[in-house]
Amino acid sequence: MCYTARMTQDVERTWELPVLLAALREKMGPDAVLVDADATERMPPGSLAPALLLPRNTEQVSQALALCHAAGWPVVAQGGLTGRVHGAQSGAREIALSCDRMRQIEEVDVLNRTLSAQAGVPLEAAQLAAEDAGLLLPLDIGARGSATLGGTVSTNAGGNRVMRFGMMRELVLGLEAVLADGTVVDSRNKLSKNNTGYDLKQLFIGSEGTLGIVTRVVLRLRPQPRSQNTALVALESFEQATRLLAALEARLSGSLSSFEVMWRPFYELVTAPPALGQPILPHGHAYYVLIETLGVAPEADSDALVEALAAAEEAGLIAAAVLATNKGQSAAMWALRDDVAQMRRDGPVVAYDVSLSLDSMESYVSDVQRELLSLPARHGGYFFGHLADGNLHLVVRLQKPSDHDEVDRIVYGALGVRKNTSVSAEHGIGLEKKAQLSKSRNPAEIAFMRTLKQALDPRGILNPGKIFDPAP
Amino acid sequence: MCYTARMTQDVERTWELPVLLAALREKMGPDAVLVDADATERMPPGSLAPALLLPRNTEQVSQALALCHAAGWPVVAQGGLTGRVHGAQSGAREIALSCDRMRQIEEVDVLNRTLSAQAGVPLEAAQLAAEDAGLLLPLDIGARGSATLGGTVSTNAGGNRVMRFGMMRELVLGLEAVLADGTVVDSRNKLSKNNTGYDLKQLFIGSEGTLGIVTRVVLRLRPQPRSQNTALVALESFEQATRLLAALEARLSGSLSSFEVMWRPFYELVTAPPALGQPILPHGHAYYVLIETLGVAPEADSDALVEALAAAEEAGLIAAAVLATNKGQSAAMWALRDDVAQMRRDGPVVAYDVSLSLDSMESYVSDVQRELLSLPARHGGYFFGHLADGNLHLVVRLQKPSDHDEVDRIVYGALGVRKNTSVSAEHGIGLEKKAQLSKSRNPAEIAFMRTLKQALDPRGILNPGKIFDPAP
Repeated sequence: MCYTARMTQDVERTWELPVLLAALREKMGPDAVLVDADATERMPPGSLAPALLLPRNTEQVSQALALCHAAGWPVVAQGGLTGRVHGAQSGAREIALSCDRMRQIEEVDVLNRTLSAQAGVPLEAAQLAAEDAGLLLPLDIGARGSATLGGTVSTNAGGNRVMRFGMMRELVLGLEAVLADGTVVDSRNKLSKNNTGYDLKQLFIGSEGTLGIVTRVVLRLRPQPRSQNTALVALESFEQATRLLAALEARLSGSLSSFEVMWRPFYELVTAPPALGQPILPHGHAYYVLIETLGVAPEADSDALVEALAAAEEAGLIAAAVLATNKGQSAAMWALRDDVAQMRRDGPVVAYDVSLSLDSMESYVSDVQRELLSLPARHGGYFFGHLADGNLHLVVRLQKPSDHDEVDRIVYGALGVRKNTSVSAEHGIGLEKKAQLSKSRNPAEIAFMRTLKQALDPRGILNPGKIFDPAP
Repeated sequence: MCYTARMTQDVERTWELPVLLAALREKMGPDAVLVDADATERMPPGSLAPALLLPRNTEQVSQALALCHAAGWPVVAQGGLTGRVHGAQSGAREIALSCDRMRQIEEVDVLNRTLSAQAGVPLEAAQLAAEDAGLLLPLDIGARGSATLGGTVSTNAGGNRVMRFGMMRELVLGLEAVLADGTVVDSRNKLSKNNTGYDLKQLFIGSEGTLGIVTRVVLRLRPQPRSQNTALVALESFEQATRLLAALEARLSGSLSSFEVMWRPFYELVTAPPALGQPILPHGHAYYVLIETLGVAPEADSDALVEALAAAEEAGLIAAAVLATNKGQSAAMWALRDDVAQMRRDGPVVAYDVSLSLDSMESYVSDVQRELLSLPARHGGYFFGHLADGNLHLVVRLQKPSDHDEVDRIVYGALGVRKNTSVSAEHGIGLEKKAQLSKSRNPAEIAFMRTLKQALDPRGILNPGKIFDPAP
């Protein structure tokens, strides 16, 4: 989909493109400035930027921004292109910038339990570097292989272990960012407690590249767990799911790290051909939950999960359960949950990612399903989510692109009539959800966001038109 | 101490004081505007503000700020007056504002595990309200009885359980704040995941009332622990302390919640007359550590702590240990750690609160002690701290107030030659540490702070001169 028409902000471009590109090549070297097909093939679908910059380090990001700022050409930062809201999509009068060549893991500090790295490092590479040092980088998402540290910080990524370790925001101890005019703000920090003035890093976390470009991060690591126990259970009702969650939290608090619910259509999709996954538990149940604990006492932790599940079974909360007895089985369970690509195999889809209170989730899902089934496409959508966080994912197949607006109306309409909801739990706003922002934020909040944007990027050159438009 | 001379910012006061006070009385009611002794006795020592405002609700805070903004009179917000950096001290040409009458706990939401309250609620009252609902408000500090939610949010309080639950920043899900001109920004939120645009609350957490006045907060609660196990141990070396911490973290990760180290002089001070505390372990050891776990399995958790301490004793890490077997014994152990008032009983003191990496802490303490002993007062200071957070508290007796600068020179000088340090782990900057800010923050960071201050409080009426001065 192309959203260019929605980019309403127009910056005055004081330099013509060839002049700017020549200056960028001069400063950064010709290999750092791609154009035409070389650029396009590395940009997200629908991007129209005539050039893609590939800085090697912070200094080159600073040079790039200083020149683009002077030239009046907006800059759209890209990460691993795994976002779902077109936050990295660039327009024809913008320059794209990728940290793909900034992939250095600069330090894993075992004593202070920190990892320092450039923004272009893929999440999985950082996870492995932490593991090699006997530590854990707890953030984990399905797109771990492609998503970058800079991207996951800029979008405040969440994922599979938030209930235990928090979102990316909680893991960032410090960062370095480049402001609109090229100013480098080095706010790296390894200390877990540092109350010296404003916590500047917060402005760059989750702001989707609209206030600065993150160039380096310092992440908090955790001790490597000594036990990992994974189970898959089947349930017949949503109430059983919420009661099971409460029961496990009461018994396993401090080690329970994932509680991933898959509604029946999702589970059946990823466990039937052409998907490669096997039905680890038989089809036919209403809900499937992937449960994981990460602990420090291998034997006791396994016993604790077994006992907790046995108690839940006795209490009538579980229809069937299987516990992984080795890493391969655990990986097979996770592979089902991660196989979101199945939903896209038959054509275009639209993905939603909402937050709501547990007590309204069941009625929300059934309202949305009922309305979706009344559309010509007659498909109730695939629901799955991080139940402990109140975070629900929904993927809907589109018969034709123009159905998008109708599905939006259903999904956000059913959300809007409920309390304590968010149109974006973890994917962010980008372009995709701009029209929905006012459903989750009030006018004073949006005005405050505009004040911040104006103060930090007065020329509006950082990822303009994403999240919100400037004041009319 | 009076720091008025250091308040360099001068706002143009467009209304004379009587005009402003009349307008405030008219809007807020006469009982909301105290003057003379009525005001002074409720303000922190050294405060000179001619009036103290006592709004009853957010609307009155908004009215107060709108009028003071129009009048050009700065407003200094007060909490429970338990701060250590003179952050709530007001000058003669400023108006003080206290949320003392805003003490309503508006909701404890058991399902979503949140507590919503006005800013003036004392921390302990909020803790008890959570406990009554079977939940835990994890933030805990010695000043829990007086410190308010608004104050602990505005200063990003830390305290005794940060290693397990994080600082106040990690517990705030949403808040409402009033901006300099009286605009109310209601950014309350109960969702644990909500990536809809900029995370505005972060700007008000830890910014000490310089960007807005926090009027309401929504805090994240945790399940009430079902076990609390407390132990006091004695050690002979700092290396034993760091190795003990690592050993306990490996065995008790997920339940270890406090690791509070007291250097010998502190322990002896609070366990000898005139202090009321008893020496639970005999005097004469080099270090004493208060250890606590909060867990979900009463029997197993107690066993786990006993076994972990036994293993540590076997490994030669512990000289002596005692485990509390009931709530009274646990409270007696905490009473020692909390009896910081002893340090002030013989006259003026100055309190420091620094962060540094564990590998440099021992040498730092010995360097500071050596230099302090070379001063005429010849007292090595009282050290104690949250070792797992790298957070060290130091209290030094002053023979005369003018020694303050000399002690500053020693404490910050020894810090400055080390890497990864902070001049304020949790107390903030206020006026007390303004001169030190540049030791922990670089010029680009401070310039960025000034940009934010200028954007959000262009007339400079919110707690001016605290943290940093405006650009010259």
